[in-house]
Amino acid sequence: MKDDRKDQHTCRVGEELTAKYRKKLPGVVDKILDNCGKDSCISHVDYDPIPSTENLEEIIDKLREVVFPGYFSKERLDPVNLSFVLGRTVTVLFEMLSQQISNSIRHDCMRYDQECSDCGDRGFEAALALLDALPEIRDVLETDVQAAFDGDPAAQSHDEIIFSYPGLYAIFVYRIAHKLYEMGIPLMPRTMTEYAHGLTGIDIHPGAAIGGRFVIDHGTGVVIGETTEIGENVRIYQGVTLGALSLPKNAGEALRNKKRHPTIEDDVIIYSGATILGGETVIGKGSVVGGNVWLTESIPPGTRVIMEPPTLSYR
Amino acid sequence: MKDDRKDQHTCRVGEELTAKYRKKLPGVVDKILDNCGKDSCISHVDYDPIPSTENLEEIIDKLREVVFPGYFSKERLDPVNLSFVLGRTVTVLFEMLSQQISNSIRHDCMRYDQECSDCGDRGFEAALALLDALPEIRDVLETDVQAAFDGDPAAQSHDEIIFSYPGLYAIFVYRIAHKLYEMGIPLMPRTMTEYAHGLTGIDIHPGAAIGGRFVIDHGTGVVIGETTEIGENVRIYQGVTLGALSLPKNAGEALRNKKRHPTIEDDVIIYSGATILGGETVIGKGSVVGGNVWLTESIPPGTRVIMEPPTLSYR
Amino acid sequence: MKDDRKDQHTCRVGEELTAKYRKKLPGVVDKILDNCGKDSCISHVDYDPIPSTENLEEIIDKLREVVFPGYFSKERLDPVNLSFVLGRTVTVLFEMLSQQISNSIRHDCMRYDQECSDCGDRGFEAALALLDALPEIRDVLETDVQAAFDGDPAAQSHDEIIFSYPGLYAIFVYRIAHKLYEMGIPLMPRTMTEYAHGLTGIDIHPGAAIGGRFVIDHGTGVVIGETTEIGENVRIYQGVTLGALSLPKNAGEALRNKKRHPTIEDDVIIYSGATILGGETVIGKGSVVGGNVWLTESIPPGTRVIMEPPTLSYR
Repeated sequence: MKDDRKDQHTCRVGEELTAKYRKKLPGVVDKILDNCGKDSCISHVDYDPIPSTENLEEIIDKLREVVFPGYFSKERLDPVNLSFVLGRTVTVLFEMLSQQISNSIRHDCMRYDQECSDCGDRGFEAALALLDALPEIRDVLETDVQAAFDGDPAAQSHDEIIFSYPGLYAIFVYRIAHKLYEMGIPLMPRTMTEYAHGLTGIDIHPGAAIGGRFVIDHGTGVVIGETTEIGENVRIYQGVTLGALSLPKNAGEALRNKKRHPTIEDDVIIYSGATILGGETVIGKGSVVGGNVWLTESIPPGTRVIMEPPTLSYR
Repeated sequence: MKDDRKDQHTCRVGEELTAKYRKKLPGVVDKILDNCGKDSCISHVDYDPIPSTENLEEIIDKLREVVFPGYFSKERLDPVNLSFVLGRTVTVLFEMLSQQISNSIRHDCMRYDQECSDCGDRGFEAALALLDALPEIRDVLETDVQAAFDGDPAAQSHDEIIFSYPGLYAIFVYRIAHKLYEMGIPLMPRTMTEYAHGLTGIDIHPGAAIGGRFVIDHGTGVVIGETTEIGENVRIYQGVTLGALSLPKNAGEALRNKKRHPTIEDDVIIYSGATILGGETVIGKGSVVGGNVWLTESIPPGTRVIMEPPTLSYR
Repeated sequence: MKDDRKDQHTCRVGEELTAKYRKKLPGVVDKILDNCGKDSCISHVDYDPIPSTENLEEIIDKLREVVFPGYFSKERLDPVNLSFVLGRTVTVLFEMLSQQISNSIRHDCMRYDQECSDCGDRGFEAALALLDALPEIRDVLETDVQAAFDGDPAAQSHDEIIFSYPGLYAIFVYRIAHKLYEMGIPLMPRTMTEYAHGLTGIDIHPGAAIGGRFVIDHGTGVVIGETTEIGENVRIYQGVTLGALSLPKNAGEALRNKKRHPTIEDDVIIYSGATILGGETVIGKGSVVGGNVWLTESIPPGTRVIMEPPTLSYR
């Protein structure tokens, strides 16, 4: 530290230098404004309020407090305060949800020149419908937790799963988002599952239809496409892709809303890194798909399919 | 914006509509309360304070400030204030850790009807033991940083690794969590490594035993199971799984606490996407496991095993 | 809850016990201080201010507000306030960026005993150059959004892509970081792309050179190495690695700054899990690389290469 070069003063800059650069800022801003003024699919100026990502995270957190009561609330929940705390959280959720849903609908309505979509009315309606569905969503999630515990030797308790398993978190967010997707709400369902994707590495499209007792273990790299159907009691591991076959050019328009992803029947296990592709591919009930298996065709119920390990060279 | 449909008033809702929906809320809340009142593994009402995930993140941040002094603190550290800043951080950590550990123990004790577990006493004891172990944890982490630098042509400096490498972050959190796991603390170790998993895509179970000079490069999709053993100077890449063989039904109960994951001896390199499975699989000292290799059997020391690339069709 | 063990008082600890443990803290702190005092690559005491990770996240957020105006701002943007809001954000960004860049340069300069690097001056200069480049970065990002929409049947709108697609987020952060990398700024570019890596599971080194209309779908597990070159209109899927061949010992020093990663020409599609390695590997224009393909050699333009699926055993 005795080195002169390390004297801080040699590294500080005076007012003069600052001014020299600062005075160039207006020119830079003008250039950016010009660029933003062009007709562009990445500017969003002069429309109504847009769905805020920040609110969405708060909505997901509050939904989690209601779905798993007592686990994630800041205050302790007991039989005395349960009804007050839950009641208040549900009321706040109603406000936030109806606002956010309404914004999502209005946004699409204005952005893409649709007919008036009664966004205000539909926001309230959908928020209420989602809250009203929470008991049945809880019932399904309880089967998910139980199934995770049954099959995982590393799980020490149900609570450990609820507190820490990314698979359960991704499934929880998916089950909420799927409900909104079914109601035809734009933008919000996908933003919710992509938020969970960011946290967990598990990418479940809200359009997928997934039965109870669903388990994703470890999970990083899992992709479940929009038109996937999954039965009851299915367990999948990290890196599993349930995807579409390779797409023709400009597939975007041609295939929108077609069944492009596989169907997985009840009681199937799919080990890590397996890839199952195509809208006509059906994995029959009770099948086991081994690690790294690559399937683009259906297999009948009760099939056990494993990859012959690639030849190894030992040197 | 001249379009009448886009007049905001058509999209606003009056008091009347709001009231129509709001008055249905009490019914929805009652339905949720009923559902939460059922005996269920996903409700957590009427227990003592539970381990808070939020505190855990703060604990990890503060531990990082102590382990890598000067890198992540908000204020500048120099020889004059080092002892004050570190001393204060350690004191705060002691409070937070003993509280959190105590909550984790008490939670399990009450939830699963165990004997009184002296949670208060053990919380202090374990917090102190962890803090006391920080110097040796730092010593090991220093070897990890050095090894990362030695083997990565893209690393410009040791500091770049500490500031930005997700592999190092996951290893840091693992080394802390493993210490708590060794002390038999429930919930908290796994919650810590799953937090790091969320941030990095690297899933290291706190039960794994891992030697010094350990490097994970890129890291997304790495899974290291609970009973894995890894020697000194091992380097692994993204997408590597050190896992269990496929499990029999209800494996959860049958295999809890058995050795299910492989042993990796010193000086081994495992390239991206390789999968090594099974509790009896041993990768001998100095071996190199190539990308995408799939191994369920041991290999002797000094083996170099690569996958014969799958046959390709060119069209 | 009637069980006596569950009486909270049995689980509380008195002042005496607290004191017993607390008085051991100074000894623990001294031990840590001793350890931090050693000459070590993981201590950072007595240097100038270091680049703060927290500021970096705010910088990225504000850059996103400028690049995608109206999408992520807290307030609504319309033609009336656009110039005020953008102008203010750009001014704040100039301050934050020049400070952060200056810190990054000064840090390296002092840490590694280099000549005085005019960090103050260069901080202003680079901040201004980055802001001045935003219009052209926006132009390229617009092609990225358009290409994502063209090829993805699950995308409902351009806005859905901007709001929620992790691939676009990673590409946005990469395009900013790459600009700083080209200007020779240390630390900061990598810290930025690793931040995006944490959020998206997509690891793009800021040194890679990537053309317009670039799409990453799903994205978890993607790795794009430092010296990768990618042309126009390339689309890649989750789990794709564009990496280096296996490295000799102490590769860190030997290979720093050499071309180690592949070249991908225009109009190439690379499906999920494919691995392409080596600095001399060129994927010719218009080629399609199938899922899980493993390539360490060049393929000529227009080649369609798919993996012969591994042999499966059905039982």
